[in-house]
Amino acid sequence: MNKKGFASDNNSGVHPYILAAIEDANKYHAIAYGDDDFTKKAKQKFKQHFGTSAEVFFVFNGTAANVLSLKAATRQHNAIICSEFAHINVDECGAPERFTGCKLLICPTKNGKITVDEIEKHLHGTGFQHHAQPKIISVSQPNELGTVYSVNEIKTVAQFAHANNLLLHVDGARLANAAASLNLEFKEFTADCGVDVLSFGGTKNGMMFGEAVIFLNPELYENFMYTRKQAMQLASKMRFIAAQFIAYLNNNKCIETARHSNEMAKLLETKIKEIPQIKITQKVESNAVFALIPPEIYEDLQKEYFFYLWNEKNYEARWMCSFDTTEDDINKFVELIKKMIQTKKY
Amino acid sequence: MNKKGFASDNNSGVHPYILAAIEDANKYHAIAYGDDDFTKKAKQKFKQHFGTSAEVFFVFNGTAANVLSLKAATRQHNAIICSEFAHINVDECGAPERFTGCKLLICPTKNGKITVDEIEKHLHGTGFQHHAQPKIISVSQPNELGTVYSVNEIKTVAQFAHANNLLLHVDGARLANAAASLNLEFKEFTADCGVDVLSFGGTKNGMMFGEAVIFLNPELYENFMYTRKQAMQLASKMRFIAAQFIAYLNNNKCIETARHSNEMAKLLETKIKEIPQIKITQKVESNAVFALIPPEIYEDLQKEYFFYLWNEKNYEARWMCSFDTTEDDINKFVELIKKMIQTKKY
Amino acid sequence: MNKKGFASDNNSGVHPYILAAIEDANKYHAIAYGDDDFTKKAKQKFKQHFGTSAEVFFVFNGTAANVLSLKAATRQHNAIICSEFAHINVDECGAPERFTGCKLLICPTKNGKITVDEIEKHLHGTGFQHHAQPKIISVSQPNELGTVYSVNEIKTVAQFAHANNLLLHVDGARLANAAASLNLEFKEFTADCGVDVLSFGGTKNGMMFGEAVIFLNPELYENFMYTRKQAMQLASKMRFIAAQFIAYLNNNKCIETARHSNEMAKLLETKIKEIPQIKITQKVESNAVFALIPPEIYEDLQKEYFFYLWNEKNYEARWMCSFDTTEDDINKFVELIKKMIQTKKY
Amino acid sequence: MNKKGFASDNNSGVHPYILAAIEDANKYHAIAYGDDDFTKKAKQKFKQHFGTSAEVFFVFNGTAANVLSLKAATRQHNAIICSEFAHINVDECGAPERFTGCKLLICPTKNGKITVDEIEKHLHGTGFQHHAQPKIISVSQPNELGTVYSVNEIKTVAQFAHANNLLLHVDGARLANAAASLNLEFKEFTADCGVDVLSFGGTKNGMMFGEAVIFLNPELYENFMYTRKQAMQLASKMRFIAAQFIAYLNNNKCIETARHSNEMAKLLETKIKEIPQIKITQKVESNAVFALIPPEIYEDLQKEYFFYLWNEKNYEARWMCSFDTTEDDINKFVELIKKMIQTKKY
Repeated sequence: MNKKGFASDNNSGVHPYILAAIEDANKYHAIAYGDDDFTKKAKQKFKQHFGTSAEVFFVFNGTAANVLSLKAATRQHNAIICSEFAHINVDECGAPERFTGCKLLICPTKNGKITVDEIEKHLHGTGFQHHAQPKIISVSQPNELGTVYSVNEIKTVAQFAHANNLLLHVDGARLANAAASLNLEFKEFTADCGVDVLSFGGTKNGMMFGEAVIFLNPELYENFMYTRKQAMQLASKMRFIAAQFIAYLNNNKCIETARHSNEMAKLLETKIKEIPQIKITQKVESNAVFALIPPEIYEDLQKEYFFYLWNEKNYEARWMCSFDTTEDDINKFVELIKKMIQTKKY
Repeated sequence: MNKKGFASDNNSGVHPYILAAIEDANKYHAIAYGDDDFTKKAKQKFKQHFGTSAEVFFVFNGTAANVLSLKAATRQHNAIICSEFAHINVDECGAPERFTGCKLLICPTKNGKITVDEIEKHLHGTGFQHHAQPKIISVSQPNELGTVYSVNEIKTVAQFAHANNLLLHVDGARLANAAASLNLEFKEFTADCGVDVLSFGGTKNGMMFGEAVIFLNPELYENFMYTRKQAMQLASKMRFIAAQFIAYLNNNKCIETARHSNEMAKLLETKIKEIPQIKITQKVESNAVFALIPPEIYEDLQKEYFFYLWNEKNYEARWMCSFDTTEDDINKFVELIKKMIQTKKY
Repeated sequence: MNKKGFASDNNSGVHPYILAAIEDANKYHAIAYGDDDFTKKAKQKFKQHFGTSAEVFFVFNGTAANVLSLKAATRQHNAIICSEFAHINVDECGAPERFTGCKLLICPTKNGKITVDEIEKHLHGTGFQHHAQPKIISVSQPNELGTVYSVNEIKTVAQFAHANNLLLHVDGARLANAAASLNLEFKEFTADCGVDVLSFGGTKNGMMFGEAVIFLNPELYENFMYTRKQAMQLASKMRFIAAQFIAYLNNNKCIETARHSNEMAKLLETKIKEIPQIKITQKVESNAVFALIPPEIYEDLQKEYFFYLWNEKNYEARWMCSFDTTEDDINKFVELIKKMIQTKKY
Repeated sequence: MNKKGFASDNNSGVHPYILAAIEDANKYHAIAYGDDDFTKKAKQKFKQHFGTSAEVFFVFNGTAANVLSLKAATRQHNAIICSEFAHINVDECGAPERFTGCKLLICPTKNGKITVDEIEKHLHGTGFQHHAQPKIISVSQPNELGTVYSVNEIKTVAQFAHANNLLLHVDGARLANAAASLNLEFKEFTADCGVDVLSFGGTKNGMMFGEAVIFLNPELYENFMYTRKQAMQLASKMRFIAAQFIAYLNNNKCIETARHSNEMAKLLETKIKEIPQIKITQKVESNAVFALIPPEIYEDLQKEYFFYLWNEKNYEARWMCSFDTTEDDINKFVELIKKMIQTKKY
C-alpha cells in the first residue's frame, strides 16, 4: 500500500463515479467486441463533445491510442514529426516505429511545444525516394512539460500542416486537463482548429483503463477496425471501457476532476515558490510542476515521496497532481521539503 | 440490454467476486506499470498454481497473450505450427504473422486437437534457407471445438516438440474449463507435461479484462518486458488486472465457475440429444456444444437467441455456456427449439 | 566447376547477348538510382510489350518482385490467396508475410493451377474484424509444377477477382516460357486478361540479376518508389538491370531462348517416356519435367547429376531445362538413367 | 549518355577488371543461391583480409548490408546509435527502422565522426521498460562527410561500446577508400580494433552490384541466412557477386582504385583552394570534397556538371571523385568554375 504522492497521475486509483459506471454496466449479457449498447452510447457522447464527424474507436491504453492513430494516417515509408520530449519519441520503447514502420523526425523544444519553424526544417526531400516522407505532425496537449497549446497555436500548426500536405495528430492523454486549463469545450481546441485525429485518455484522470482514438478527418478510419484487431487492441468486453467514457464525459465530470488536478498543481507551484532554494522551470498550465531541487534533499525526499527526476543531471523533478490530491497533501509535502532544506542548512 | 444467450462466453458480464476484488484494490496510490504489491502477489499466486519456475506477465487480452507468447519464443524467420481451427490462425486478423513475422503452418483436424503425425509433416526443410524454420507448436486447451487434450496427449506433443528442437505453447483462454474437465491442478497438465509457455485467460470465465503470459521455460522471457511495452500491452494501472487474477486463482474460484459452465454444457448436450432432428458433432468436454440444426429453424432461433454458426454450409451451431448460465436458461432454450421444430412440422 | 545438369534454371550462367548488353551499357557515367537513359528506354520497351499503361520498376530478384508487388496492392490487415505450391508460400522463408504483414490463404491444387472454386472458399468473413481481409490473388505463370494457365483460365480468375473486389497478381519469374508455350504476346495473357500487377523475371532465362515489377493497374504504384527503397531493393547502378531487360525484350530474344528450354523439356519428356520404370507426373508445358523415379537409382543419379526431389516421399524428381540445355545433354542424361535402371535389374 | 562528373561515385560504371571477372565466372553451371565455388573462394578471400573469424554473406546493395548487419545484432526493442548524417539515418527511407524494428538515436557531429561523449548521452534508461534499449553503435568509415576515423578513434568507440554492453557496426560502403587513406590493411582498422560487424561495399569503387556483410563477432550470424532470404536479399546467381569480390580483393586491386579516387579528391581540393570565393568545409581524407560555392554560379555549374548540394541553405556542394576521374577532368571542372566566377565579376 503506497502513500499518496506526486510521482504520477497513473498511480492514483479509479474515481468512485467511474467504478459506479462499471458496476452499472455489469448487468445482463452484452455482445462482445463493441457491438453493444454501451459502446453505441459512448460513441454518441463523443460526437456531442467533438462534433458529429467524430468517429471513435476504443483501445486499451495510451500507447495504443497514439500508435494506432498514427498508423491510420500513414504508410510505412512516411515520417512522423514530433517534439523531442514527445511520449511517442521517448517513452514507448519504439512502439511507434515498430508498428507504423515510420521514421520519427524530432523537433527540439524548450517548453514542450513545437513550432512551425522547427517543423519546417524537416520538410525537404519531398518526392526524393531516399527520404522517409513526412505525413503527420504529432503534438501533445497538454504536452510532456505540462504546458498547453493555445487555440491559436494549435490552429497555426494545423494550417501549416494542411498547407504542406500533412496531417495533425494530438496526443490527448490528459486532454481534460487542457480543456480545464483553456476553459474551452473539447471541440473548440481540436475539431474547430483542424486536428485530424486524436488520442483521448482518461486513465490519468480517474479511469481504470481504456483510451479513445477520435478521427475528425473522415478519410482516415476506413480500415481501422482491422488495424485495431491486428494490433491486439480489440477488447472483448468493450462495454466496460465504453461505460467509463460515458460517465467520464457526462456533465463534464472529467473536466471537473481535471480542473481540480490543475488547481492543485497551481497551489503546489505557489507554495514551492516560497522556497528560494527551489526553482520552477516550466509554466504550470496543467497538473504538472517541474522544479530544480537541491541535490542534497533528493534522496531523503524520494524515500518519503517517490517521484521521478525529469533530468537527472540538474535535479529537475516532475511532480504530478491527481484527481485525489488534496490541499493537505500539498501542505505536508511542501512542509517536509522546507524542513529538509533547513536541516541541510543552506 | 441483451438477453442471456449462448453466443459467447465473452457476452456475459463480470462475476461479482471479481468486481469486489477490483473495488478492494482501489485504495491508496499504487505504483503504475506493474511495480505494485497486487502484481507481486498475483505473480506469487501463479507460482503456487503453475510451479515456482513460472514467470508471469500481464497483458490486456487473449490476442496479445497468444501473440506475445509466440513472439517471445521465435525469431522472424521461424514458423509456428497450429491447428486449422486455432484462434491464432482464424480469428486474429493476421496479428500473429504481423507481430511475430513468422509463418503459420497448419494442421488439419477433425476434433480440434492436432497430432504428432500432422505436425511432423511440416518438419522438412530444416536448415534450408528458403523455408521458414518451425520453432514452436501452439495448441489450444480446451481447443476451439471444445474438446480437451488429455495429460498423455499433451505430454506426447511436448515430447515430440522437444525431441525436434521445438517448443510448446498452450492457448489457455479457457484453461480453467480444461482444469475442471480433467479434474486436475493447472500444473499437472501444463508445467508437468513440458509446456514451455502459455496464455492464461479469465475474461471468458468472469473477469473484466486482462490475460497472463506464463513462462514455464526460463529461457524465453529475458526481454519480455520490452516486447510487451513495444506491443502496446503494458497496463498503467496494472493492479486492476493483478487483483482480478488474485481473486480468480484464490480457493480455486475460477475452477468452480468453469466447472459450472462445463456442467451446463453437459446438460445442454443431454437435453439436445433428446431432439432427433439435431446432431451433436463434437464431444462436450468443456463449455461448448456444437450441433447440426435444421436449417428451417435457424433464422427464427437466431432472432430469439443470437448465436454463431460455426459452419454456415451445414448449419453447425456453436453454443457456449457461461458462469452465469442456469438450468432454467437451458430449459427455456431447448423448449423453444423443440417448439420451433414442431411448428416446422418435420 | 559444375557439370551442366537439370537441377535448376538458376544454375545456368548468363546468356552471351545479355553480357554484351551489360558491356555496352558500361560507357560514360550514368545517374544512379534509375534516373538514367537505359532505365528510361527499358521502361519504354516494357510498354511495347505490356501496353502503354504498364508502369515498371526494377528490383534485384524474384522474391522482391513478388513481395513488393503484393505489398503495393495490400494493407497489413489483408490476406493473399495463392496455391499451396506457390513460391511465395513455400520458398520465400516467410518474406511475404514479413514484409506485407498479410496472411496467406492457401488453395490446394493437383496441377499447380488454382481454380475459382478453391479461391471462393476463402471469401467469407468479409467485413468481419477478426478475419484478415482477402485483397489479392497470386498465380504463377507458368506455375511451380510447370503447367501454364490458358488465356481463358487467367481471364476467369481475373474476372472472379474483380467481381469480388480482389486484385490479381501474376508471378512471372518464367513468363517468357509461358509466352513461348502459349505462343502469345505478353500483353495477350496479362494486361488483356485483367492482370493488375506482375513480377517479370529473366534470371532463370539467361539474365544475371534483376527483376521487374509491372503495374498494369494504375492505382497501385503511387508510393512504390518509396516502398522499393525501404525494402532495400533500389539498385544504385540500375542501368545494368535496365540494359539486360532492353536486350531481353528486344526482337523477342527472351521468347526464343525460352522456347528452346521448353522444347528441351518436351524432348526430355519424350525420351523419359520410353522408360517404363519412370512415370511423368505433370503435363510438360514449359521447361520443367516432373517424374517418379525408381528409388534404387536416386542416389547414384544424384551423384552424376545433382537435382532436387520435389517430393521426397514418392521420389518425384523435378528436372529443369535451361537456355543452354542441348539435345546431347538430354541424350546423355537419359542414357545414364537407362543404364542405371538396367544395372539395378528390374 | 552523361558526361563524367562529380555528383556521385555511383554514377561511374564498372571497372574493366570487374567485368572481366564476371565474364570468367560465366562458364559451366554453378549451383544457385551461394552453394558454388566462387562464393566459397570469395569467403576465403575475405578471411585473408579480415581475419579467419570473418564470416561473410553477400547481399545486393549497401542499404541491405547495413540494415541486415544491424538486424543480426539487435532485437526489435533495441535502439541503434548513429550520427545525424549517417546514411542509415538520412538516406534509407526508414529501411533500418522498418526492418529492424529498432529506434535510431542520433548523435550530432560537425565532421561526420561521432564521439563517446555524444554516444554516452543516449545511455540512460537501461533496464527501463519504457525505453528502447541501446544495443549497437553504427559508424561510417569513411563517413558521409568524407573524413576517416583513425585507428585510435575506432578503438575508443569499440572499447566504449563493449564496456557498455554495446556492439559496434561499421558502414564500409567505401571501406577501400578508408584503407587507402589510413594506409592500413582492412584488418588493422576493423577486426583488430574490436568491430563486431561491418558492411563492405564495392559498387562506389568500380563494382556492378553486390555488398558483403562481414561478421567479426561469431555470436551474431547464427540465423543470418534465413534473415537474408526473408529480407529478399538472397541472389540466385550469387557467383556473379562472389566473382566481383574475388577480383576486388585480389592484389589489393580495390585499394589501388580507391587510392586513385582519394588522390583525385586531394587534387581537386588543392585546385579549388586556389579560388578565394570557394571555401572547403571538411578535411579531404577520402574521395569527397565539400565546399561552399558562390550561389551565383550554382545553376550554371549544375547545368554543365550535375552534382548535389549537401546543404541547400548555404550552398555547400559535395563533389565525389571516382576510380575513373582523371586529372584532366579536374582541370576542366576547376577551370570552368574559375571562368564562371570571373564572369559573375566578384
